[in-house]
Amino acid sequence: MPARGSIKAIVSYDGTAYRGFQRQADGATVQSVMEDALERLLQEPVRVRAAGRTDAGVHAREQVIDFAHSGRRSAGTILTGGNALLPPDIRIVAAEDAPRVFDARRDAKAKEYRYFLYLAPVASPFLARYAWHLPRAMNVGAMREALSHLAGTHDFSSFRGQGCTAKTPVRELLGACVEPEPVPGLYSVRVEGRGFLRHMVRNVVGTAVDVGAGKIPPERMHELLALRDRRLAGPTAPAHGLFLWRVVYEGGSSGPCRTGRACGN
Amino acid sequence: MPARGSIKAIVSYDGTAYRGFQRQADGATVQSVMEDALERLLQEPVRVRAAGRTDAGVHAREQVIDFAHSGRRSAGTILTGGNALLPPDIRIVAAEDAPRVFDARRDAKAKEYRYFLYLAPVASPFLARYAWHLPRAMNVGAMREALSHLAGTHDFSSFRGQGCTAKTPVRELLGACVEPEPVPGLYSVRVEGRGFLRHMVRNVVGTAVDVGAGKIPPERMHELLALRDRRLAGPTAPAHGLFLWRVVYEGGSSGPCRTGRACGN
Repeated sequence: MPARGSIKAIVSYDGTAYRGFQRQADGATVQSVMEDALERLLQEPVRVRAAGRTDAGVHAREQVIDFAHSGRRSAGTILTGGNALLPPDIRIVAAEDAPRVFDARRDAKAKEYRYFLYLAPVASPFLARYAWHLPRAMNVGAMREALSHLAGTHDFSSFRGQGCTAKTPVRELLGACVEPEPVPGLYSVRVEGRGFLRHMVRNVVGTAVDVGAGKIPPERMHELLALRDRRLAGPTAPAHGLFLWRVVYEGGSSGPCRTGRACGN
Repeated sequence: MPARGSIKAIVSYDGTAYRGFQRQADGATVQSVMEDALERLLQEPVRVRAAGRTDAGVHAREQVIDFAHSGRRSAGTILTGGNALLPPDIRIVAAEDAPRVFDARRDAKAKEYRYFLYLAPVASPFLARYAWHLPRAMNVGAMREALSHLAGTHDFSSFRGQGCTAKTPVRELLGACVEPEPVPGLYSVRVEGRGFLRHMVRNVVGTAVDVGAGKIPPERMHELLALRDRRLAGPTAPAHGLFLWRVVYEGGSSGPCRTGRACGN
């Protein structure tokens, strides 16, 4: 009999149709759909763990998952066979054997989220599922400045969503910036950190958009951190613009925000 | 009473849910949905004409339409009010008053289509509606060479779809090329021409993909044109990868294929 093993896989999904990553009492989630497909393929119970538990409607470009299995199927078969059983809005992009102690969430050194904003008078039919459309003029320079104040280790209570169960509101952000994308009017807010509170990225983006609209001066970001009051910061940006972009493990390269190169800060 | 006038509008749509642009006996088309919305807004019968009659499932980044109206509503009101009544997968991006003789189709000097190919081992959930996924290795250089042979005025019978009602199979292509897009693995086949036969772009793409896969040598494109036999060229590429990219009118700028700059040919 083959030895039990672990699989590390990179998974990409369009979160539009799902009630988030984590299994719920009812409704399809990425975890429930993946576990069902893998159980059919492997003919054994499968429990999938993810690096980041994305909320309902949030997408993932490169989510990382792990699960234990009997070892009767190779990583290559799991990729091909899993994709054959999964719906087209969830894809296993890569799969490899991992040490049995590997834990996609605990072993992650950093995660990068990107939030897409479409700044144009009229919405785009092609971006409607993937970007927050803002028809008003936005000061992107002010947003960039506001975001730059968030790098470092801070108490993020002002950006902490209701129902967050984290033991501490202190988190280390490696960088936060906003960059133009190759599509005219499309921008991404990029946030890289060691860990995140509930709705933290969407609350940061909602506040940055208030800065871009001139409602909040960019330098007030410092104060908002110090005041530790969720009611003083901006609204929660809608889920559909957010992507878990990538997860960094030991030896992984640092992202554009971390080096500050692409962010201009 | 205000004078009757004409509106020229740029329209963007995701063709996934529609049976093409042109009104059909049954099923939603872009034309039927637009005419219903504009008739509700203007409270008068509206007949929309388009520069390119896209097939079922084909998208448009910048389709151009025209229609006559009573002149009681401004172009700005038609844009805002039309978008309020249209579904999110059809957007009026711009609208302006046009001379009453303006005809979006007849006055077009050229049209550019782009066909997106996603060359990667695993499909992407985000490109599934907008690009043809090809998991095999492709020789993009050979595809580029094959496409370069199509520029000029030719008899395109080998790329003419069944049921095409055009009087002549001769068309002038200003350029045809394949370019990498900013997303890794994503390429666009760009074809600019004075006019197109039914399924012509999709048949050109299907043949270019056969060249990329090594089934047809690139220099055979010349022969395929001369043989004027649809059965000898490649298959029809699926509709969902195709976009009507832009329509050029008098005084409009020439595209990347025409100048040959971005195409490297």
